[in-house]
Amino acid sequence: MAKKSKVKIGVIGAGRIGKIHIENLVKNVPDAEVTIIADPLVNETKEWAKEFGIERVVSDPYEVIADPEVDAVVVCSPTNTHADLIVATAKAGKDIFCEKPIDLDLKKTIEALRVVEETGVKLQIGFNRRFDHNFRKIKKLIEDGKLGNVHIVNITSRDPNPPSIDYVKSSGGIFMDMTIHDFDMARYLVGSEVTEVYAVGGVMVDPRIGEAGDFDTAAVVLKFENGATCLIDNSRKAVYGYDQRVEVFGSRGNAMALNDRPTNVVVSTEEGVSSDKPLYFFLERYMKSFEEEMKNFIDALTKNKELPVTGNDGLKAIIIAKAATLSAKEKRPVRIEEIEKTALG
Amino acid sequence: MAKKSKVKIGVIGAGRIGKIHIENLVKNVPDAEVTIIADPLVNETKEWAKEFGIERVVSDPYEVIADPEVDAVVVCSPTNTHADLIVATAKAGKDIFCEKPIDLDLKKTIEALRVVEETGVKLQIGFNRRFDHNFRKIKKLIEDGKLGNVHIVNITSRDPNPPSIDYVKSSGGIFMDMTIHDFDMARYLVGSEVTEVYAVGGVMVDPRIGEAGDFDTAAVVLKFENGATCLIDNSRKAVYGYDQRVEVFGSRGNAMALNDRPTNVVVSTEEGVSSDKPLYFFLERYMKSFEEEMKNFIDALTKNKELPVTGNDGLKAIIIAKAATLSAKEKRPVRIEEIEKTALG
Amino acid sequence: MAKKSKVKIGVIGAGRIGKIHIENLVKNVPDAEVTIIADPLVNETKEWAKEFGIERVVSDPYEVIADPEVDAVVVCSPTNTHADLIVATAKAGKDIFCEKPIDLDLKKTIEALRVVEETGVKLQIGFNRRFDHNFRKIKKLIEDGKLGNVHIVNITSRDPNPPSIDYVKSSGGIFMDMTIHDFDMARYLVGSEVTEVYAVGGVMVDPRIGEAGDFDTAAVVLKFENGATCLIDNSRKAVYGYDQRVEVFGSRGNAMALNDRPTNVVVSTEEGVSSDKPLYFFLERYMKSFEEEMKNFIDALTKNKELPVTGNDGLKAIIIAKAATLSAKEKRPVRIEEIEKTALG
Amino acid sequence: MAKKSKVKIGVIGAGRIGKIHIENLVKNVPDAEVTIIADPLVNETKEWAKEFGIERVVSDPYEVIADPEVDAVVVCSPTNTHADLIVATAKAGKDIFCEKPIDLDLKKTIEALRVVEETGVKLQIGFNRRFDHNFRKIKKLIEDGKLGNVHIVNITSRDPNPPSIDYVKSSGGIFMDMTIHDFDMARYLVGSEVTEVYAVGGVMVDPRIGEAGDFDTAAVVLKFENGATCLIDNSRKAVYGYDQRVEVFGSRGNAMALNDRPTNVVVSTEEGVSSDKPLYFFLERYMKSFEEEMKNFIDALTKNKELPVTGNDGLKAIIIAKAATLSAKEKRPVRIEEIEKTALG
Repeated sequence: MAKKSKVKIGVIGAGRIGKIHIENLVKNVPDAEVTIIADPLVNETKEWAKEFGIERVVSDPYEVIADPEVDAVVVCSPTNTHADLIVATAKAGKDIFCEKPIDLDLKKTIEALRVVEETGVKLQIGFNRRFDHNFRKIKKLIEDGKLGNVHIVNITSRDPNPPSIDYVKSSGGIFMDMTIHDFDMARYLVGSEVTEVYAVGGVMVDPRIGEAGDFDTAAVVLKFENGATCLIDNSRKAVYGYDQRVEVFGSRGNAMALNDRPTNVVVSTEEGVSSDKPLYFFLERYMKSFEEEMKNFIDALTKNKELPVTGNDGLKAIIIAKAATLSAKEKRPVRIEEIEKTALG
Repeated sequence: MAKKSKVKIGVIGAGRIGKIHIENLVKNVPDAEVTIIADPLVNETKEWAKEFGIERVVSDPYEVIADPEVDAVVVCSPTNTHADLIVATAKAGKDIFCEKPIDLDLKKTIEALRVVEETGVKLQIGFNRRFDHNFRKIKKLIEDGKLGNVHIVNITSRDPNPPSIDYVKSSGGIFMDMTIHDFDMARYLVGSEVTEVYAVGGVMVDPRIGEAGDFDTAAVVLKFENGATCLIDNSRKAVYGYDQRVEVFGSRGNAMALNDRPTNVVVSTEEGVSSDKPLYFFLERYMKSFEEEMKNFIDALTKNKELPVTGNDGLKAIIIAKAATLSAKEKRPVRIEEIEKTALG
Repeated sequence: MAKKSKVKIGVIGAGRIGKIHIENLVKNVPDAEVTIIADPLVNETKEWAKEFGIERVVSDPYEVIADPEVDAVVVCSPTNTHADLIVATAKAGKDIFCEKPIDLDLKKTIEALRVVEETGVKLQIGFNRRFDHNFRKIKKLIEDGKLGNVHIVNITSRDPNPPSIDYVKSSGGIFMDMTIHDFDMARYLVGSEVTEVYAVGGVMVDPRIGEAGDFDTAAVVLKFENGATCLIDNSRKAVYGYDQRVEVFGSRGNAMALNDRPTNVVVSTEEGVSSDKPLYFFLERYMKSFEEEMKNFIDALTKNKELPVTGNDGLKAIIIAKAATLSAKEKRPVRIEEIEKTALG
Repeated sequence: MAKKSKVKIGVIGAGRIGKIHIENLVKNVPDAEVTIIADPLVNETKEWAKEFGIERVVSDPYEVIADPEVDAVVVCSPTNTHADLIVATAKAGKDIFCEKPIDLDLKKTIEALRVVEETGVKLQIGFNRRFDHNFRKIKKLIEDGKLGNVHIVNITSRDPNPPSIDYVKSSGGIFMDMTIHDFDMARYLVGSEVTEVYAVGGVMVDPRIGEAGDFDTAAVVLKFENGATCLIDNSRKAVYGYDQRVEVFGSRGNAMALNDRPTNVVVSTEEGVSSDKPLYFFLERYMKSFEEEMKNFIDALTKNKELPVTGNDGLKAIIIAKAATLSAKEKRPVRIEEIEKTALG
């Protein structure tokens, strides 16, 4: 590659996921350089950022967007700020990486994407699981025709522990905050659009989650334009750890992505044969996928490659989540066009 | 056990499954003795039966039922004869083992079970998978509390090849003929009753199946009284063989029954790491379960043990299959009570 | 197959393994018929044999051999009777199946085989593991060239519990009584002859075994004419059950036969991920292989097929066992020709 | 940890392994700082090192050792330079990390270790596999008593491809260059010293390796003071990739470390069930262990922790390799004390 200047990145929000993106950009993405960070906790962030050679930390996100040195903005702030920050960054003519979901409100999401399209900037949404080594391999098997036509997709996605009740109250519900990853995975793997959603929810783990108006256990059936069916099951609490499995069944075979584990050691004793539990949670399981995600984002910018996850991907996942939420509430299958019509009014 | 004479069995129908039951009764169930068989192909059956020391073969099933020597009747004739044969056998005061489903007609089924109850005879239904070593172990784990409360059940059940189109036309449809086993498995494992069914069907394998009015690919969500949810997926054609897996996820962990395979040999070459496909079809996979099923039936008779699968179990599975069929047709979830009311209407 | 009379079998010795062979011959080998049994416990054996429709039970093995009705003799009596019974049966012109080892004494073994050869009768030795589904598949992979030339064979063979000290004292030692199966397996898989043996033994499990002059833990290296090397490890006590694994590594890949287990259920809880221990002991693990062994024996007789395990196979395994015993004692590798020369004097 | 200056590291040799250590020290070991590198290819190394912010690159290794800023030296130069560089660094009073083996000559090795002891500097040897996640877990299981007393260790260690014939000629032979890792692993896991070695070698992969006086296939039996036995098998060419497995069998159970693979995807098609081959070679498989190795080295320096791999560990492995080489040549077991006596004259 010809010697050229690096992509200058401004990061908005240096919470858990923001820190991961910054560390990956600094250590593992040679073509990127993080030049400025915005976070309300300026001092703490400054102290932390020093380790990575980043000196500029500000409190105002719009200062990052306006910074003339910044080529692209990585948005890791709370969900309710995403749409506004996307719009402002797009209007500043800068490329954007934004964490999922774009917004809990469908109209706001659509409006933000309209601005992105108008301004012609690039927008990648943070569906990191597309970059997981296991799921990528399944995608490749499908693309290579090894599985034939996709008939059935089974996704199991369970967390090791529920989030706080406060988080539950503001997350938009299990379908918007947790299953949304599975909706994107289903679309990614099937390569077709969802037409109908049926969802059921239960409160099996913690009654306080039910009192907060949400479910902690869910099952979803997605029907796709191309005839494929996807079954998803979720739980907020798998005592054995983060359970993240995908199976694709097609006319020529099936492929299953099993869980990653800390070691491949198998122990046999009088009590039985045992092995490691899955990697504990998303930080452990998906760490490598976050790195790949950022590499792909920077590649899309520097090599003018296609974006691996577009704003439309972000939008579709939200629409499916809305449909699932409505389905579980009204106890009926909901067609995607019903949600789209309502949103577009 | 006190020395007593063996249970004398008459078998009606010596097709594939009838032959399996006869062979198991003769070889592996010491307390049973097959004394008479009814089958339209009298000569062929006679020839075959000789090997097993059975000499009496007749064409009329009612001759078997009426035979004074016969203590119990094993019904393996076509589905549309089951209800009548159950009624006649019950009225003759003899115990009954009957293959599933009892009848495609719900009223006829209920009437047959009424007679069974009135006469006080024992009736076991042929849900052999309850006796599979893997699923039994999962049931035991649940009963022993190892998995805690059951939250989610995932059942994958796929055949290696579709049946003939003629069979498809008369089988009552995929939910009645194939998924019915999974409905029973779900009830068996969850230990609660289904309240609502949502089913979707597709024609992905062979358009002639669709033309015959059936599906070859299906997904079902069952909701249970106790809050559990069950997801089932079916296909008429898994090119890699008979795919029969069950997962139960509960508050204390999960248990997965993987497929049985001919060998445990793992081969690594330049091409990759490979192992055997699953056992080819139900004869291979469930052979041992048929043996256990018969042992349990005879045990229930000789030791006055509880029946492991009752007429009510047969009825409930049919009701769920009816609900699934209606759901897939009308594209809406169907409550079990809706089916029950209609039937009893 | 043309309709012909069955092979009439006389069985000598109705202990544990004798009973297994009888049951398999009766139930699973249609071309065979057990007509007479010799066992010191005549009454008990009579009672047991009645179940299988066998009425003639005698105490004198030579009565079985002399019985004019008997076509072939299955020898399951104690090792020290094998050679004499083989000689007598061969002289009576009848085919023989004999449990391993032929005899602890090499000269006696060679003499017995000489008589077998002279008389032209067939003699199969009871190396049942050749008929195990897993090991057979590995053999087939080798024969089909899937693994290329065999370079390394690893055999792990561990019992769940040591035998009684009395048994240890009379068994001929661990190499003669336990490793002998592995020696045969190595020859079977490699398809070449052993040229040199190095063996080490230890007493790690029970000091009384050491006091009885034997080892309870052993490791052996075999060198083959064709350049292959085999490593064997044995233990008298694996607390997790019967550990029977084989790996063959060749120029085109490797194949591993893992243990068979009661179920394929995988359980994940807070404590970890666990599955079944291996099948408990040789009765459980190798039951099917005993059946196949008898079928092959009877096939060799009725269809004039090649014997799957010959007297020479029995002899070679004993010679290797002798070499291993000497090697462990004198702490040096022992060449097979050294043992052969001594034996042939 | 109190804020203190970082350990200043000089690296001698920036070939493949030297580059790995440098990259790990820079990216993943915050307490270390690489300040100077010596390599004959000064310009290329300078270009490469710039990426990591290292500016000083020299050709003379003694310049690194003499540099007053340097606290510790990492020796990654060819084996025949190790002993001299260890001596010089020790005399300069600086701590040392040295790649294995210390030297092919036993006397030179012993002399270098004598100087290290006299000067009191710290010396860690590059047996990186001790830091592999799988093997570490097995070590922990042993230390925690989960496996009881160790009876048998099985090590399979096979490369995907042979090295160049030039390398073979200078490597000291398969036991010194390849099996040496397994010798260290065996000592590490068993926690006792080897007393006797029996080794056999073959030329199965490439006759040119035999012509160069080496083996490409090997099997070794190690006997330990505490009674344990270890079986090792090696091949220079496993067509399915880098095969690195360890099994420890003890009085309370066994533990097996299986291979790591790129993904956990299992694919089932008409052809069979397949999964990924092992990670390709040591760079892929052991990358993480190199990082842990350096972290442990720097920890030993900064926190005054015990060295995880000592000079004595390096020496013992060489002695075992010498014994194995002699054993394979003279076709007899060789006692360790025989080698030690010869070396110490």
